[in-house]
Parts: sequence; structure tokens; C-alpha cells
Amino acid sequence: MKATVLHDIGDIRVVDVPDPVIAEPTDALVRIVVAAVCGSDLWSYRGLEKFQSGDRMGHEWIGIVEDVGSHVTEIKRGDLVVAPFAFSDGTCPACRDGVQTSCPAGGFWGGRNGGGQAEAIRVPFADATLVAVRADVDDALSRRLLPLTDVMATGHHATVLAGVTRGSTVVVIGDGAVGLCAVLAATRTGAERIVAIGRHPDRLRLARTFGATDVLYADEAETAATVVDWTGGGSAAVVECVGGQSALDLALTVARPGGTIGSVGVPNGVDHVDLYRLFRANVTLRAGVAPVRRYLDALITDVLAGVLDPSPIFTTEVPLGDVAHAYRAMDNRQAIKALIRPS
Amino acid sequence: MKATVLHDIGDIRVVDVPDPVIAEPTDALVRIVVAAVCGSDLWSYRGLEKFQSGDRMGHEWIGIVEDVGSHVTEIKRGDLVVAPFAFSDGTCPACRDGVQTSCPAGGFWGGRNGGGQAEAIRVPFADATLVAVRADVDDALSRRLLPLTDVMATGHHATVLAGVTRGSTVVVIGDGAVGLCAVLAATRTGAERIVAIGRHPDRLRLARTFGATDVLYADEAETAATVVDWTGGGSAAVVECVGGQSALDLALTVARPGGTIGSVGVPNGVDHVDLYRLFRANVTLRAGVAPVRRYLDALITDVLAGVLDPSPIFTTEVPLGDVAHAYRAMDNRQAIKALIRPS
Repeated sequence: MKATVLHDIGDIRVVDVPDPVIAEPTDALVRIVVAAVCGSDLWSYRGLEKFQSGDRMGHEWIGIVEDVGSHVTEIKRGDLVVAPFAFSDGTCPACRDGVQTSCPAGGFWGGRNGGGQAEAIRVPFADATLVAVRADVDDALSRRLLPLTDVMATGHHATVLAGVTRGSTVVVIGDGAVGLCAVLAATRTGAERIVAIGRHPDRLRLARTFGATDVLYADEAETAATVVDWTGGGSAAVVECVGGQSALDLALTVARPGGTIGSVGVPNGVDHVDLYRLFRANVTLRAGVAPVRRYLDALITDVLAGVLDPSPIFTTEVPLGDVAHAYRAMDNRQAIKALIRPS
Repeated sequence: MKATVLHDIGDIRVVDVPDPVIAEPTDALVRIVVAAVCGSDLWSYRGLEKFQSGDRMGHEWIGIVEDVGSHVTEIKRGDLVVAPFAFSDGTCPACRDGVQTSCPAGGFWGGRNGGGQAEAIRVPFADATLVAVRADVDDALSRRLLPLTDVMATGHHATVLAGVTRGSTVVVIGDGAVGLCAVLAATRTGAERIVAIGRHPDRLRLARTFGATDVLYADEAETAATVVDWTGGGSAAVVECVGGQSALDLALTVARPGGTIGSVGVPNGVDHVDLYRLFRANVTLRAGVAPVRRYLDALITDVLAGVLDPSPIFTTEVPLGDVAHAYRAMDNRQAIKALIRPS
């Protein structure tokens, strides 16, 4: 089959690889319907994160189940399934606690595991990992479900970490796909005031569409002071969706004493967490990779009900053979997020 | 009057200073009944924290009100008052949020403000800062109330930050006065299992008296693994009462995925907060200087009711003139905590 691999820095290729097979009785084989390129795929693509040449790529995908192992009882052939970006066994303490990303037997797609930017994938712990969507799923619905595999669930996790509830004021730092989804998640939760801080006018326009009540530019000198002024001393809830030093520093500056920073950007280039500053202001730091599986059922329900639609984050769409184009478009920030069609 | 000053590194002196006076109509003048030396007083004493020669010392004290300014209405002459280690105006957003340590008009005792290791002190915002104890207070009761000014409230804050509730399992790192008080606070809250980790057999014995169900030694190689084993994968609540790198690292190691570290040790020599490790395991870091004022009323109530007695942390007692001895005893770890009597 065809699968995307990272051959070298900046060199994404679609190559022939062996077809995946059922290796364990708890596995499923899934044919990919749509996949996506994630901002975090760009870290290794840019050489900012270690990789081995030939690493499989892609952790955002939905597909149709082709086959299941003998111990799989919930997931059936023909099911359309949504996968979180991490697989997990569903039985360990971490899984039972809803922190499936810490499952010792689990793992993440890509690298030496299967990747989602491919024609098919082997799924360990299929019953625990996958959620079947037993509804009529057309292409428009697929595009709405696909972000739930990572960015929409990650944006939601950020708002959960930051303690956003109905009526909250929340500051969202970052206008990438995760930041935009965090705005949408805050809207879904009923936040009253949502201040989106970004760098790109087109993305901040989409933030407004997703429910941001105010938008500010990260690079403008008065932005932090404006937030502190609007919120009467800082925001009790701050969502950090970048993972870089300047975003974290900005989060600390706009957080209210006693407030909470929910941080879901993969830490990259963060040299310093100012513990004394957190301590001095009693600001809680809740950084966490999203346990997507915990949130999938509720988010799928809302997509099927027509009340949640993160699909506008897909601004580019390419066939699998052109996946390198999708990476370039995201790397150049011409695309917010690219959708890949294997067939 | 006599007051304690830090003259130079390791050189604590009791000197004559001008008597404090009412400077603002919201001030009170208080004659100190008992004061204490705090572990954090040792940072500057050891030269590990900046100071100016002549800085006043002492932020833990209770006393009798001698005089009040014209705008003071709640606090009366003759009241026995308990003071938090920070004064605050009681009206700003931070004070209303219960984060009085972030009051922009507030401050901390010592340095260029008055110090509590003295005969008397001027108290700004007396009505907001002080809590009057209108009960018969004998010496034994004074000794029980004094820890509420800092270490007992700080230990309690740590357990609040870590999310300790009735039935919780909690790991308390540090067997100084704050760690011991955190054990006592966890007991008061109804924690079911309290694992105290320290370095000193005598202090860990006191931890058991305060309710620790298990004690471990920080420097033993198997300690972290033992905690992870006992708790089936790590503790959901970890309390860090040291503020140093090794304590913070240990806290991260024994925290359960999705768990919370409540950290109240003044950060000192912490070079690195491992954000990626927090992120990877969804561990929340809640570091915070204790807003003692928020907790004073409830803690005083329990002391007066006879159900809370942190006074065993005082293992040394000296007259004000011998305060240098108290610092030496704490610096050498001969004393857990020293009580000072101005008269």
C-alpha cells in the first residue's frame, strides 16, 4: 500500500510499504477515508524534533474497518471509526482515570507504528481505541469528524484544563488549528467572553466565526496590558495552544492571580518555566497532551447533532500522492490545516 | 524598641530602632506577644537570597493591639491579633478572589517593612489584615495560634492546591515545619492515607503524630518506586513543601498521570521545571505562596475548639535577645522551629 514517510528534513514522500495485517487478536485493520496533517507533524519535518528516515507520518485519520482480530467484540467490519491520536488498552489505571495518553501499553501513531497518512493502518486495542460512528456519514460529515481525532479534542482539553465553564472569560493564545478549536470548544462550553490572540488576520477572522468575542495580535506591544485591563487584573482562565516560550510567557502575563493556564501546545523550545512567577501569583499550570479518547463520544454526539463543526479549519485538500504539497502549504502558513484523501 | 535585623550573612542582631507609629489612618500598632523564625528566613541568613544589611526580620507573629488609626473599625485596642505573613487591603480584585498575597497595595513583613521578631510592629490595612481572637488566650493557646500566621496555613494551602479531600491519598514531600503542617492539614481534611517523605527521623516521628500513615526517606533509592507501587501508579495528590530541585523532581516522579502537585516551598535553586514531563503525563503544577488571610478564620476556629494543635513544631524557645541562637539552631537543624518571646 501507499504510506507517507519522512525521508529527510523537508522531504516527505509517499512510498510503497507492506500492507498492514492483524498481528494481535485485539487488532483491527482500517482503510483510511480521510486524514490530516497536524502542526506537530511539522516539528520533525522542520528538523526540530528527532526522527528516523522512513518514519511513518500522520496521527489524524478516520476510516472504515476492514478486518478485526478474534478478541475484538465492539468494533465490526464496515464500521466508520474515529481514532484518537494515541491508542490505549482501556484497562490500566491511566485509562480508567481518563488519561489514556499515559497508558503504558499504548502508543502514538507514526514513527515505527502505523501512520494515518496512508491507505490503511493496523490499530492495536481496537475496542478500547476506536469509536464507531453508526450513522450515515457523507463527505461533509467526515470532514467534521476528522478534527476530533486531535485538534478539536485538544482544543477542548485546553479549556477543560483551564477550568472554562458556562459564563467564563477565557483568553486563547494561538491561532493555529488547536487555538481555533479551543475557541470553538469554549463557545460550546458556554464561555461568555473569548479573547483570541494570534498573528494572522485570516485565522483571527475564523476565530470570530468560531465565537471569539475579541481578537488581539500577539506581537503588538499593548496586547497583554489590554487583556489585563479588560479582565480587571488578568483572566482566571488562559489557554495556551502554541507550546513556545513567548506564548507561555504571554499566558503568565495575562493570567489573573489565582488563575489557571491550560497548556496543550507540545512544548518546543521552552527553555524556562518561571516557577517563581507561578508561585508568586498562585497561577496554576496545567500542561497536558490531550487524552482524546476521553472526549470522543461527547464530541461525536455533538457533530452528529449538527451543533459542532470544526471543519472550516481545513483550508487545503490534496490526494495522498500530493501530501508533500500539503506539508509545504502548512509550513509556509498558506494553509491552516490540510486534509488528505488516500483515494 | 528592640528589633531583629540581618546585619550580614549569618549575622543576626537585635538592635534599637525607632518605635513604630501610626502612619496611615488604616494602621494599627501591635505589641508582639510571640514570634517565630521561619525556614524562609534562613535563605537570606545563608546568603542564598538578596538582602540589605539592616533588613528587619520575622513574618510570623501574634500580638496585642496598642493603638489604631482613625479609619480602623473592626480591630480594637487590647485585641489579641493573628497576622498573616502578608498584609493586604482587602478590597482589590486579588483580595476579593482570596489571593491576598497578590494585593498590589499589600506587602510582606520584613525588609524595609516592619518585622515580627521585634517588640512591636506597625500594621497597614489593619481591618483587612488582622484577625482578632476574642477569647481567653493563655500561653499554650498562643503557641497553637502562632503557626497559623504562616506554616500551618501554608501546609493547608498545599493540600488545597493538591486537591486533597476526605478519603484522599496524599504524598507530602518535606519534613520541615511546612511539610509537618501539611500532614496535619491533610489529617484535618480527612485524608485516608498520608505518606510523609523526609530526611530526619525525629521529624518523621512527629509526622506520624500529626497523622502520617507511612513515612519514607527522600534519599533512599527505592522511595519513589515504593510510592508508585503503594498507590498503584502514582499519587493523585502530591504536596511539595521544600522548594528545591530534588523535591520537585521527586514530586513529578511520584505523581500519578493526571494528578496534581501542590507546591508551596519558596522556589530556591530550582533551575528547571520539566514542562515536557508535566505535559506528557497531564500532571498539574499548582505552585503558590499561601494566601494565609483566606484560611485564618477557619484555622483559628479549629485551634480554639481544641481540634487543631500545630504547636509541637516549636522545639526551641528563646527570648528576643537570643534570636541569633534560634537562627543557628534552625540553620543546624537542631530545631524544627524556634519561638521568640520579646518580653
